[in-house]
Amino acid sequence: MVTRQSYDQELEALRQELLRMGNAVAMAIEDAVQSLAKQDVNLARKVIEGDDIIDKMEVDIEDKCMVLIARQQPLARDLRIISTGLKITTDLERIGDHAYDIANVTLRLAHQPLIKPLVDIPRMAGMAQKMLHNALEAYFKLDITLAEQVCLADDEVDNLYQQIFRELLTYMMEDPRTISQATQLIFVGRYLERIADHATNIAEWVIYLVTGQRLRKK
Amino acid sequence: MVTRQSYDQELEALRQELLRMGNAVAMAIEDAVQSLAKQDVNLARKVIEGDDIIDKMEVDIEDKCMVLIARQQPLARDLRIISTGLKITTDLERIGDHAYDIANVTLRLAHQPLIKPLVDIPRMAGMAQKMLHNALEAYFKLDITLAEQVCLADDEVDNLYQQIFRELLTYMMEDPRTISQATQLIFVGRYLERIADHATNIAEWVIYLVTGQRLRKK
Repeated sequence: MVTRQSYDQELEALRQELLRMGNAVAMAIEDAVQSLAKQDVNLARKVIEGDDIIDKMEVDIEDKCMVLIARQQPLARDLRIISTGLKITTDLERIGDHAYDIANVTLRLAHQPLIKPLVDIPRMAGMAQKMLHNALEAYFKLDITLAEQVCLADDEVDNLYQQIFRELLTYMMEDPRTISQATQLIFVGRYLERIADHATNIAEWVIYLVTGQRLRKK
Repeated sequence: MVTRQSYDQELEALRQELLRMGNAVAMAIEDAVQSLAKQDVNLARKVIEGDDIIDKMEVDIEDKCMVLIARQQPLARDLRIISTGLKITTDLERIGDHAYDIANVTLRLAHQPLIKPLVDIPRMAGMAQKMLHNALEAYFKLDITLAEQVCLADDEVDNLYQQIFRELLTYMMEDPRTISQATQLIFVGRYLERIADHATNIAEWVIYLVTGQRLRKK
């Protein structure tokens, strides 16, 4: 028989593992965008190689959730902790994939000068990273107010993405030689917009965890 | 006390709900790509409005999984049926989102002639749809061979995406007036490539369900 105390310890261990995965994913975004802005191929390779570790973290967390479910009959809040754990790990893994995607763009653009120094893309990345950071903090503190702030911030990221998108289209139209690179940078904008969506999903899972109410996901 | 028989019935009901959701999602891809090729705004709106229904199916399936977990202590195969159900419904929901994304491209391009009749995009959609169909069939028949075929087919879709991508870049370089539309069509290619990735994920979940072995996900 598993005691309530040891069960609580296992739930806490699950939360800690999610935090570690969240930190690994946040670092992957940071490194990926830095690698792009500085055309640093080695840093991009580090992100690409690190994706396997993030994927493995997801598998470990899922397995831990399954063991907790199998050994217990979790109800209400406990069940929501585990089910949101399963959901959040999926969102984190997808964010890691997008960092991997951005690092691949770095490799693709490594042997050509950037059409302009990147300013808005790192800014957008900073906004998405802050959303992820706040979503994870909201999860650990069960802080609904912070979770709601994350959801609201998503509109700003969407607006910046639209601005970046239009600007890159203009570049392409004015100078067709920029088309190939600008297309890749549009993809990067899209990946960052998706990262912000996943951070929003995580914040919505926190609201579900605390209130039992599900919001419309993106 | 829930009897084994009624429990088996509930697991079967879960599988049936996943099939219904899979069919709804397959229809959404079909309609979205048809709406794009035929510039049919009404059909695009149908896909966009239908996305709420698909999202609701995901929530219902997740709730059903949670109830099954809470009322039972599922082990081994039973636990894998439920945990893969949770994962597959997430992949299906993401596929539905991409159908929604494609329908939005239809609306964006509605008031301009297509730069050329769409041939490769519907072909790519057909391949992705077939992968989804086979992945769902593999799930219902627990057919590993079929699931492995789905995983192999993903490379063909990736190759076709690269071909579409290069062709659209060429269009843009030769005639900058096509840039805005070609960029949207590149997005559609990317969404279809992601749909094929999610079908591959589902096939990999089937392999996990049957063998207990997890493959590297995309």
